[in-house]
Amino acid sequence: MKSQENQKKLKYMNAALREAKKAENENEVPVGAVVVFEDKIIARAYNKREQKQEFHSHAEFLAMMKAAKKLGTWRLEDCDVYVTLEPCPMCAGAMIQSRIKNLYYAADDPKSGVAKSIIQIFDLPFNHKIHIESGIMADESQELLENFFKRLRKSKN
Amino acid sequence: MKSQENQKKLKYMNAALREAKKAENENEVPVGAVVVFEDKIIARAYNKREQKQEFHSHAEFLAMMKAAKKLGTWRLEDCDVYVTLEPCPMCAGAMIQSRIKNLYYAADDPKSGVAKSIIQIFDLPFNHKIHIESGIMADESQELLENFFKRLRKSKN
Repeated sequence: MKSQENQKKLKYMNAALREAKKAENENEVPVGAVVVFEDKIIARAYNKREQKQEFHSHAEFLAMMKAAKKLGTWRLEDCDVYVTLEPCPMCAGAMIQSRIKNLYYAADDPKSGVAKSIIQIFDLPFNHKIHIESGIMADESQELLENFFKRLRKSKN
Repeated sequence: MKSQENQKKLKYMNAALREAKKAENENEVPVGAVVVFEDKIIARAYNKREQKQEFHSHAEFLAMMKAAKKLGTWRLEDCDVYVTLEPCPMCAGAMIQSRIKNLYYAADDPKSGVAKSIIQIFDLPFNHKIHIESGIMADESQELLENFFKRLRKSKN
């Protein structure tokens, strides 16, 4: 039973990683996300901040926006978010606002992650609690990010 | 000189309050915001979460989205935000993401405010610092909010 649960998590995080690779192909910081509702992916998205010039176009934010549009409500209470990088305050805040049920993320973000790294924002006394699990396919996500920034530094030299 | 500065702040917060009143007229929690760039209001918005069924349609978030669209960039470095209520994590995070210069807000929000109430998010070591001032026209904003919730409770009885 537990291994079936883990298989599911791997499947969804894999889908989020595929999104991250799309971002990479478009020269965006490679982060991807999916939203899962009733055991189905109802929204997929990847980071588009540069191409859209929108501060809010982070992968998980866009995926949650799509999910809200699809479900016709701002309440995403029965939705889970899978994202390849620890969320920033804006995206973590959006999860609290939209009442996401579970957050699964891959790699930690020591510079702006607020699930664990800079602060544990989900432990603060907001009126919605989210269950969090991290580290799922963290190596794959980390590698994607490191390679991206390596290439970026090279291209700037 | 100082009183001229204060006059400006009152003028812009007044504009944000006018936005909040529009929200009230549409049965939304009365919060309003404006974004100021080069001494001009370039974006105005009010809370539309219920009518749009979008978790991100908070007043200041919508105003910042409009400002980014207008300026054609996600970097709002020379912009100031005036909002009638202390921002939640999502909106405060959006200010960090978009590199807002100054944040002026009216009333504190003990339930989900993160500039001062639940946490001082802007004091955390993110790679962008924002100057904050609170309390401008706080009584007016507070009264608007209290009356709204009073009516809401009455209508539910």
